[in-house]
Amino acid sequence: MTSTIDPKAIGKPVSRARRHVRTLTGYLPETDESGKEKWPRGDEKTWKENMRALETDVPGISRNIVNHVQTSLARQAYNLDDLGAYQAAALSVRDNLILNWNDTQLQYTRKEPKRAYYLSLEFLMGRALDNALLNLDLKKQYSESTDKLGFNMEDLLEQERDAALGNGGLGRLAACYLDSSASMELPVWGYGLRYKYGIFQQLISPEGQQLEAPDPWLENQNPWELPRLDVQYDVRFYGSADRLNDGTPRAVWSGGQEVVAQAYDVMIPGCFTKSTNNLRLWESKPKRGFDLNSFNAGDYERAVESSNSASAITSVLYPNDHTTFGKELRLKQQYFWTAASLADMIRRFKNIGKPITQFPEYVAIQLNDTHPTMAIPELMRILVDEEDVPWDTAWQITTNTFFYTNHTVLPEALEKWPVPLMQHLLPRHLQIIYDINMYFLQAVEKKFPGDRERLARMSLIEEGFPQQIRMAFLACIGSRKVNGVAELHSELVKTTILKDFVEFEGAGKFSNVTNGITPRRWLDQCNPELSALISKSLNVPKQVWLKDLFMLKKLLPLAEDAAFRKEWAEIKQRNKERLAHHVRTTLGLEINTNAMFDVQIKRLHEYKRQSLNILGVIHRYLTLKDMSAEERKKVNPRVVFFAAKAAPGYWIAKLIIRLIVNVARILNADPETKDYLQLYFLPDYSVSLAEVLIPASDISQHISTAGTEASGTSNMKFCLNGGLLLGTVDGANIEIGEEVGESNVFFFGYLTPEVEQVRYNNIYHPRPVEEKSPALARVLSVVSQGMFGDGGIYEPFLNTIRQGDYYLIADDFDSYINALKMVDDAYLDKEEWIKKSIRTACTMGKFSSDRAIMEYAESYWNLEPVKIPA
Amino acid sequence: MTSTIDPKAIGKPVSRARRHVRTLTGYLPETDESGKEKWPRGDEKTWKENMRALETDVPGISRNIVNHVQTSLARQAYNLDDLGAYQAAALSVRDNLILNWNDTQLQYTRKEPKRAYYLSLEFLMGRALDNALLNLDLKKQYSESTDKLGFNMEDLLEQERDAALGNGGLGRLAACYLDSSASMELPVWGYGLRYKYGIFQQLISPEGQQLEAPDPWLENQNPWELPRLDVQYDVRFYGSADRLNDGTPRAVWSGGQEVVAQAYDVMIPGCFTKSTNNLRLWESKPKRGFDLNSFNAGDYERAVESSNSASAITSVLYPNDHTTFGKELRLKQQYFWTAASLADMIRRFKNIGKPITQFPEYVAIQLNDTHPTMAIPELMRILVDEEDVPWDTAWQITTNTFFYTNHTVLPEALEKWPVPLMQHLLPRHLQIIYDINMYFLQAVEKKFPGDRERLARMSLIEEGFPQQIRMAFLACIGSRKVNGVAELHSELVKTTILKDFVEFEGAGKFSNVTNGITPRRWLDQCNPELSALISKSLNVPKQVWLKDLFMLKKLLPLAEDAAFRKEWAEIKQRNKERLAHHVRTTLGLEINTNAMFDVQIKRLHEYKRQSLNILGVIHRYLTLKDMSAEERKKVNPRVVFFAAKAAPGYWIAKLIIRLIVNVARILNADPETKDYLQLYFLPDYSVSLAEVLIPASDISQHISTAGTEASGTSNMKFCLNGGLLLGTVDGANIEIGEEVGESNVFFFGYLTPEVEQVRYNNIYHPRPVEEKSPALARVLSVVSQGMFGDGGIYEPFLNTIRQGDYYLIADDFDSYINALKMVDDAYLDKEEWIKKSIRTACTMGKFSSDRAIMEYAESYWNLEPVKIPA
Ligand SMILES: Cc1ncc(COP(=O)(O)O)c(C=O)c1O
Ligand SMILES: Cc1ncc(COP(=O)(O)O)c(C=O)c1O
Repeated sequence: MTSTIDPKAIGKPVSRARRHVRTLTGYLPETDESGKEKWPRGDEKTWKENMRALETDVPGISRNIVNHVQTSLARQAYNLDDLGAYQAAALSVRDNLILNWNDTQLQYTRKEPKRAYYLSLEFLMGRALDNALLNLDLKKQYSESTDKLGFNMEDLLEQERDAALGNGGLGRLAACYLDSSASMELPVWGYGLRYKYGIFQQLISPEGQQLEAPDPWLENQNPWELPRLDVQYDVRFYGSADRLNDGTPRAVWSGGQEVVAQAYDVMIPGCFTKSTNNLRLWESKPKRGFDLNSFNAGDYERAVESSNSASAITSVLYPNDHTTFGKELRLKQQYFWTAASLADMIRRFKNIGKPITQFPEYVAIQLNDTHPTMAIPELMRILVDEEDVPWDTAWQITTNTFFYTNHTVLPEALEKWPVPLMQHLLPRHLQIIYDINMYFLQAVEKKFPGDRERLARMSLIEEGFPQQIRMAFLACIGSRKVNGVAELHSELVKTTILKDFVEFEGAGKFSNVTNGITPRRWLDQCNPELSALISKSLNVPKQVWLKDLFMLKKLLPLAEDAAFRKEWAEIKQRNKERLAHHVRTTLGLEINTNAMFDVQIKRLHEYKRQSLNILGVIHRYLTLKDMSAEERKKVNPRVVFFAAKAAPGYWIAKLIIRLIVNVARILNADPETKDYLQLYFLPDYSVSLAEVLIPASDISQHISTAGTEASGTSNMKFCLNGGLLLGTVDGANIEIGEEVGESNVFFFGYLTPEVEQVRYNNIYHPRPVEEKSPALARVLSVVSQGMFGDGGIYEPFLNTIRQGDYYLIADDFDSYINALKMVDDAYLDKEEWIKKSIRTACTMGKFSSDRAIMEYAESYWNLEPVKIPA
Repeated sequence: MTSTIDPKAIGKPVSRARRHVRTLTGYLPETDESGKEKWPRGDEKTWKENMRALETDVPGISRNIVNHVQTSLARQAYNLDDLGAYQAAALSVRDNLILNWNDTQLQYTRKEPKRAYYLSLEFLMGRALDNALLNLDLKKQYSESTDKLGFNMEDLLEQERDAALGNGGLGRLAACYLDSSASMELPVWGYGLRYKYGIFQQLISPEGQQLEAPDPWLENQNPWELPRLDVQYDVRFYGSADRLNDGTPRAVWSGGQEVVAQAYDVMIPGCFTKSTNNLRLWESKPKRGFDLNSFNAGDYERAVESSNSASAITSVLYPNDHTTFGKELRLKQQYFWTAASLADMIRRFKNIGKPITQFPEYVAIQLNDTHPTMAIPELMRILVDEEDVPWDTAWQITTNTFFYTNHTVLPEALEKWPVPLMQHLLPRHLQIIYDINMYFLQAVEKKFPGDRERLARMSLIEEGFPQQIRMAFLACIGSRKVNGVAELHSELVKTTILKDFVEFEGAGKFSNVTNGITPRRWLDQCNPELSALISKSLNVPKQVWLKDLFMLKKLLPLAEDAAFRKEWAEIKQRNKERLAHHVRTTLGLEINTNAMFDVQIKRLHEYKRQSLNILGVIHRYLTLKDMSAEERKKVNPRVVFFAAKAAPGYWIAKLIIRLIVNVARILNADPETKDYLQLYFLPDYSVSLAEVLIPASDISQHISTAGTEASGTSNMKFCLNGGLLLGTVDGANIEIGEEVGESNVFFFGYLTPEVEQVRYNNIYHPRPVEEKSPALARVLSVVSQGMFGDGGIYEPFLNTIRQGDYYLIADDFDSYINALKMVDDAYLDKEEWIKKSIRTACTMGKFSSDRAIMEYAESYWNLEPVKIPA
């Protein structure tokens, strides 16, 4: 035919035969017979003469920044504002990161080490510039340079918008782990999605209502990402799966819709090392000229629309913590991401030319919660259908490759997908899941013959209308190891949700890696004065102790040194003033910095019990009102801070925000009490806000109902910055208590083993709140009677306490109030308080994410560090 | 309230008090009392030392390219392919353009000249790299540098994707005018829309069906645009308009939806000058946190959706030529674009601090067709409602600012908008249009008292269900001058559609500017050998004659020089071979380059009569089949090329493509005839394809029914490249004929004044095709009988000829066939043909767009060139 052209080629630049195909990352120089590297193309001298090295001196940095102002931004000194100067500086830092990134990746390719991949649907990175400057150890030079150019570095840092591709702890953990991997020089990449809109922006209406606005964080262009136009994979959805029935387990999956995954790379600089790892984020794009059927009859508008529908896959991060089930688009996201990531890993593995059976010797994949579980049937599909590997071998490869981290034992938070949805969207994967389930249940039946209940309990398929696929079970049996994220939580995993699996597979497969946090961002970056004091007092450069956080222990004796305590206390005070300044300039409010700063910041969730905190605040207010002016003068003044986003559809959580906001309105305006008790709800909680709040806290609250919080990580951050901990005996609080010693933390409330019984009683032998806690009863009644605006609005929330009280608010209330009193009493002895603060910070060595990532590397992935030559 | 924050501020970086606000383009250095410029910020020396100059020598260019490879692309010599090398080279050229761009804009700001703005909904730019290299006069240096780096410049040029933000002539004209404005050093900016998808990509199915795929031209990132994050305007839609009724004509327009217009700047380099103008394209974006009402009840998904709907405004170029009416989104595009552009112009005008009444002394706005007509009521709205200018003064300012170019007299192509749609989308503008109409009709009534029919004919509002707004009339009365685009067409404007307006406003307001084309792209760039021959023969550098195209006339005597003719003919032959090579590498087809190349490329439209051409080809085929092998040997071999996109909903046009494709299939496979007649339909017509086709043509066809083609510009392009013209006495063909002389062109067909009568007869006194043209009747019958596949398919097309024959296919057929014969005869005398070719090219001086743009500048806009100091 004279005039047809290949739909795939249309509009693409004419492709000519090339001498070599030279695309994609991870390319190595070819060598000649003698093993000498051949220059790939062009004149070697011209290339080498013109190649850049890192820009590390002030004049070079200035030249680079001015260059970016002129050309990348097309501006001039005449029309450059802080945002422009930030962008120019960021582009210049990016240049440096890229050079390290290139060297790191080339070294990985040369050395062919085993690599680990961290699959996480969320990466809550926060800002990048300050972090990059500190990790590159160039902050001083850059500040000097921007100074010369007329800009203040701290102002520029404020221009950056957070990369908020996560909901909370799970996403921030992923970000800390990337920092630690690069800093520990481990060959680890992250894989995630490049959401066009990150976590929503929270607005608070005058009535105290949370409103959600989309977060167009990419709007100003993102200097921290590199589009990889040459790294693209096709991902299929829908269609049909036909088993070959040729004696092999193979099937052909065809038809449906194909979407393109396009890679964006985010550079992850290690701390004081050339090592710069990669976070690869996938964007969905329409496949060009693919769906000819939808183009018939000149239906051009539909063709454009279908392009838009492909882009929709990575358009928005689901704003739910723990509960986002049944949404087709969410399953699409999960599969899209795991399929693209696996395709990329397999391409990279194939470059080294080893047989596919050695895959687990070169690749470890960590599943951050069940979100990436579709990677398990996807790897099976690739091995069986595409690589023609026998089923059992494929299953062996798979189960030696994956590692699964559980993040919750809340039953309502365990991920399940309806079978009909899976059938429709991923028909081949459903077949594979059925086959995995069949072989698995046969083995269970063999070990526990006749135990039908056990088979029903352990099946990957939960009966019901519709049937559901239990993703945690699939993740468990498809992985080599399973871990929880704190001692208690890992124990609960073994004794509750995965109990049957422990019995079947043996306890050895299940263990614990307590979460960690990166001391670079959460101490050196957010609290530079404290970091400097530590370096000075340890008399070692931060380069050393920031990568060996146990060294902090050496400072413990200084708790007894009054001069040291004074410096310590002054830094805390300045951090409180910095926070007050921030609140003044952003919200226009005046904060009393002589008061104790009491902070609870985390996602708004009933299990985290911000409710308990706000009800405690009301109780304190009532107590203050009952006092005489004289009595009040003896009270320890307190400022209580909340910051929290609620999932948009989580009604009770939003009611709690509304209550906090309205209580704040009354309290802060009450002339009798406002010097003793202030309350602030800071809107739009984010990593950057946390970085200002955490160093300023005297005490922070981590008060989840025992047994519900898997670990918590903000608790570690507060403690590392010398804030004391008020908490329940839950999650990582327990291990923090072990490290700092009982006398330095404030624990309260029922313990995990008791909770089940209390809940049982609350339902089957209920007692009224008045009886359990008269103090709480009074609080509920003033709320109900309208002290903080129309009480009727809050009834649904109050009823969760009056009836059932699943989270033990009433049961724990008096114990909580008592703990608050102990905190007040302790704070009155200022010197002793500072000692506690020092002891707390200096025993946080265990909670460095460096420790955690090394546990994964050594005990799970079997990974070795790779040195990048200078 | 403690916890509300300004929705506008949320998520935006904290803004602090700044010393100066320094954003936007067009900033001037401040001066001290003595008039000396003050350095704005930072250390002047550090800035100045580090500022870059143009990179013009090979080593500097190489360094710049390598730098972009390493950092902008994060690649290395090891993994660089042609696409990557193109991008690096493009980024390096872009750096140079930006430096010139900055200097140009600064000079405009300093000098405060009157500026002209070219408002066009389409800019069909094509590729940018080659054009930039030629205009900067750096092609040699860049080629040398990429050579050193191992890449061939011609291969790199092929990597670029066309910027195809237009349908055809109107959009390409805008692109040529931008090139000429910069080359003539005129302060002219273009304003348009940044469509995410340009004109669709055309695919041809095996049956010959046109299929349309979206054109994601921005996918690979676009090095030729600069996002201007600081240039944003809010544009309102819907809502309500309330007249103040305070004795002023003012109203308040409020509510509805606001959308953000974000500027992207495209650099337009002049030829051999520092002058680098700007094409500013607007992208639509959601306004952040704006629509609080849509966020209530936690409807986060809808909030995200509404973000997407804002982006949809600039998502796609409407793929229709001449007929896209009644679509709300199109009206949204038009208003969005004109509102943002006017806001930008007014901001710029206000910077110079003159009273608003002087607006027309500093600003001229050219309306490219009626698409930007909403700018007229929008300027009135700004003046009356926002600037508080009295109505009459506002109208005077407005009518002295705008200039309107009409592009068609086809009645079905005149733009109209339903009143109810306007009421809904732009309620305030409808009020203003009503007011304009009222004052206008009062004046008409005064001049022609009692002539009610005239009032009805001239009203801006056409009666009917629904009522419609006649945009051409609004454009006419709101402008200072109105022009057509060729002598004949301007005459038709005055005597047909705007006849009443000529009678009312006087003939002086109406005149003509014949279109032009830029000889840089359409000769020097697409036909470098011919350009070199011209420079050599004129013995002046191309720098001179490319900007003074009348100089070509000096070469006329060389038509008599056999050596010159030989060189000329050899170049044509090599261009034919280049085309054949292109077709071979892209489509895999072999073309006979010894045949005459006969080309018709332009939008597929009934009025352009590709139908006539394909029916002529079939007639030629039948004639060949009738001949003996001996007779055939005497025939002039011909290869006929078509390329054309049809609007996706234009059924008859798509049928014509189908017929062409199927005729090609038969002809090219017929062993008896294929040496004498080949036929190719080249898919996906574009500027880049035109650049290969035009220099290769021996003859090209421009055969619209007389009176229908306003000008045509491809006719000029072919002629400038020494291709002869076969055409009707229509549009610019007439003026081309005047320039080259009757003996060098081939005209045929009914003349414009006769067409109306012929059409009348075709309806009221029809004669069968058999009678009008037996030759055509035979052609229709073989088609109908299935010579080219199922004849039934083509019946609807054939019937347009059999019945009514609005475009005079049968009436002109014999005359057309006769003209084709004259072409064949002329071609037999090769030497004489070359003479004609030389004479044609060398008399094209008039058709340089430099001449056209100078006419606009001098006779319309009153604009002076501005020299940019080196
Ligand atoms: C923005 C953000 N959200 C959520 C978290 C997790 O908080 P938690 O460990 O208290 O659940 C953190 C940790 O500091 C954070 O920075
Ligand atoms: C891509 C493209 N489309 C359309 C046109 C306009 O063609 P015509 O003047 O024949 O209508 C041109 C002019 O060369 C062109 O380059």
